[in-house]
Amino acid sequence: MISLKTPKGTADEPPRQCFLYEEIIEKIRTVFVLYGAVPISTPTFEMKSILTNKYGEDTKLIYDLKDQGGEICALRYDLTVPFARYLASNRIRRMKRYQIGRVYRRDQPSIVRGRLREFVQADFDIAGECVQMMADAEVVSCVDRILREFGIGEFRIKINDRRILTSILEVAGVGYESYGTICSTIDKIEKMKWEDIEREFIQKGLNEDQVKTIKKYIELVGKEDILGLLKEDAVYKIERCKAAIHDMEELFRLCRILGCSRSLVMDVSLARGLDYYTGMILEAEYLGKAVGSVIGGGRYDNLTENLGERCATIPCVGFSVGVSRIFSLLNEEYTKESSTMVYVGASGGLFLDERLATLKVLLDAGIPSETFYTRRSSFESQQKYAMGKKIPFIVVIGESEMLANSVQVFETATKKKEIVKREEMISYLFRLLKDARSPDASQER
Amino acid sequence: MISLKTPKGTADEPPRQCFLYEEIIEKIRTVFVLYGAVPISTPTFEMKSILTNKYGEDTKLIYDLKDQGGEICALRYDLTVPFARYLASNRIRRMKRYQIGRVYRRDQPSIVRGRLREFVQADFDIAGECVQMMADAEVVSCVDRILREFGIGEFRIKINDRRILTSILEVAGVGYESYGTICSTIDKIEKMKWEDIEREFIQKGLNEDQVKTIKKYIELVGKEDILGLLKEDAVYKIERCKAAIHDMEELFRLCRILGCSRSLVMDVSLARGLDYYTGMILEAEYLGKAVGSVIGGGRYDNLTENLGERCATIPCVGFSVGVSRIFSLLNEEYTKESSTMVYVGASGGLFLDERLATLKVLLDAGIPSETFYTRRSSFESQQKYAMGKKIPFIVVIGESEMLANSVQVFETATKKKEIVKREEMISYLFRLLKDARSPDASQER
Repeated sequence: MISLKTPKGTADEPPRQCFLYEEIIEKIRTVFVLYGAVPISTPTFEMKSILTNKYGEDTKLIYDLKDQGGEICALRYDLTVPFARYLASNRIRRMKRYQIGRVYRRDQPSIVRGRLREFVQADFDIAGECVQMMADAEVVSCVDRILREFGIGEFRIKINDRRILTSILEVAGVGYESYGTICSTIDKIEKMKWEDIEREFIQKGLNEDQVKTIKKYIELVGKEDILGLLKEDAVYKIERCKAAIHDMEELFRLCRILGCSRSLVMDVSLARGLDYYTGMILEAEYLGKAVGSVIGGGRYDNLTENLGERCATIPCVGFSVGVSRIFSLLNEEYTKESSTMVYVGASGGLFLDERLATLKVLLDAGIPSETFYTRRSSFESQQKYAMGKKIPFIVVIGESEMLANSVQVFETATKKKEIVKREEMISYLFRLLKDARSPDASQER
Repeated sequence: MISLKTPKGTADEPPRQCFLYEEIIEKIRTVFVLYGAVPISTPTFEMKSILTNKYGEDTKLIYDLKDQGGEICALRYDLTVPFARYLASNRIRRMKRYQIGRVYRRDQPSIVRGRLREFVQADFDIAGECVQMMADAEVVSCVDRILREFGIGEFRIKINDRRILTSILEVAGVGYESYGTICSTIDKIEKMKWEDIEREFIQKGLNEDQVKTIKKYIELVGKEDILGLLKEDAVYKIERCKAAIHDMEELFRLCRILGCSRSLVMDVSLARGLDYYTGMILEAEYLGKAVGSVIGGGRYDNLTENLGERCATIPCVGFSVGVSRIFSLLNEEYTKESSTMVYVGASGGLFLDERLATLKVLLDAGIPSETFYTRRSSFESQQKYAMGKKIPFIVVIGESEMLANSVQVFETATKKKEIVKREEMISYLFRLLKDARSPDASQER
């Protein structure tokens, strides 16, 4: 007995969900294009060696392909490492690109929170040397504009700098080799209770004083004033921390010029899970929503050079939009199920040839149209179908209309009927469609 | 030493190629929507058991996922079997759906012919009982309209019926159990020399008389007259062949009503490689092009019921567009590399803050814009970049313009310059952009 289910953590998307996904992706893509980014595409799977040592504790979540007597490959885990590989292998030193595609993680799935094993990410990254914090500020501005697109409500964009975080660990006396794993724990701070965070710290070898020191810092959340506090603190004596704090100040300044500082929050507890970040990091969330962060990103200046011996250093900064998370916030309210504008119906007979001839005229005019395939069909059932799918018009073929070389146009919203000459049908419909939604707009779907 | 290459048979797509893919897919999607189809999406990988016994000799080309202690999965080989699984698992009896996505085949790759191991298919299928050949005719009409979209030139849509083909094999005395494998050989007729086809027939157990009989039939290529010839032949006595010939006649008739019979060719040698076809089959190609067929499809009435014991029979007919094949026909001539409308430049200084402030105004107006990130930049190099990317306008910030609260607008195509007041910049640009290409049109990308 063959099971018809999809693999664990994956799901089919029915039309309504696909329409919503298409709309979300189109909005994000429009913002990416607005910021002058160009698209690239990379394979669904990569050479396994490219993906190893990039994701820290999450490496175990990578999907491997079976060795079928060729290369050893694995499904991509994100779009960031493939982008770094793309830059390095094509020797590109400067690029602003976007990529929208599926990524794969063997994680514990949770459909409610929009966390599946296969999900869509939309990435925007700026690669190349740049004036201090200029690309970073543009990234924040782009994040801010995307979050405004969906009418989901208030949001905040949390920022921090990996160098501030590692300086805090240095002040707390944590060994360099533990920075990655301790950051992983700090990253869970919004998902776990403080006692559990504390226990994980102790398990990872910290003592109570160290935990207390870290706690003091990572409670700092606010606007630029937080940077002022840090400047009067011991961490400011550490060179990389000083540089990071000045970078954060410049970031706030540039974001004010770009008009995206209102939702910006300095949050010292922000850590980000992935290994490859080196400077500014960011995470964005809608306030009062259960899905957690919908956008995450940061600066990763060493990823390309770490790919291989002869790879150049290409500083990069960017972010991923968790498209599936945004989807789960909009899913409940969304109702579109069809793009069809005209349903070709029949009353008092099947009129197969006449319906097909009418369909041809509608299709030639670029009006999305459909008709029924069944051997019998009542006008009532046709009407019910068209109204259920919110198809705005039914063109009805009937005996008397045929004799008069006419059709009946039925408006599903108002139930208004009108007899129209065949040769005037298209211009009549164009007039009505212009009032409802334009046929051009629907074709862009 | 880590290799930076993509896995065998896969490739990165740089921006120019992505733009072209986006345009091709958008055109196909628009036609699918025109025909009233709705989108669905299925996972990139399926339970391996779903994919076995569906693809005949090609089953060995399926990519398996590694067993990492869970379910046994494999990458999808096409979008047809997942669609059948979708129908069966959701108990859907009637649906017109499209799906556009990547599929995976461990085949011998050939970049020139647009044959990679990972490639994009765009599928359109009509599921559900229907009046004789009505859905089939709509499918041909949809194929015809897609082929017209790309301005690639003349094309033909070859049709045949699997039942005609198996009746010919019956007349030739081929055993039922060999129908599948003999069809596989007939399918190669355009890619191999006749002697090699003949040799393969003999290897598969046919004798010379049988080969001669088959040859006589599969040389029949033409319009409806071929059906007339078959009606006077021995095969017409076989019931299923008689039904198929009448179906083909009705298909020609309905296609004439739908205005898509001009390119329709009855080709008895058309076999299609895949196992699951049961009735009408089709293949479309542009004349005089080297890539071979760009669309293939047909009727598969038993696929859903064969998925499992309790699965209903859902007759289906549809086709796949080989998007990568169409891509390879258009790739050479295509030049778009950027969607940016305005480049914010600077002359006689960096003017970072002023450039960002100008950028903000442009972005707020919805005009795709970018500026440079470097610590130094001459106006000449900025101009060269913008012209290379065919960005239509440069807004130049300079000392004297700043003092006059103005910017210079430089048109890259004509090299015309104009000094414009800051507050009039957007309305001035909108006027110019309307003449060139509208900013709204570019945002739809």
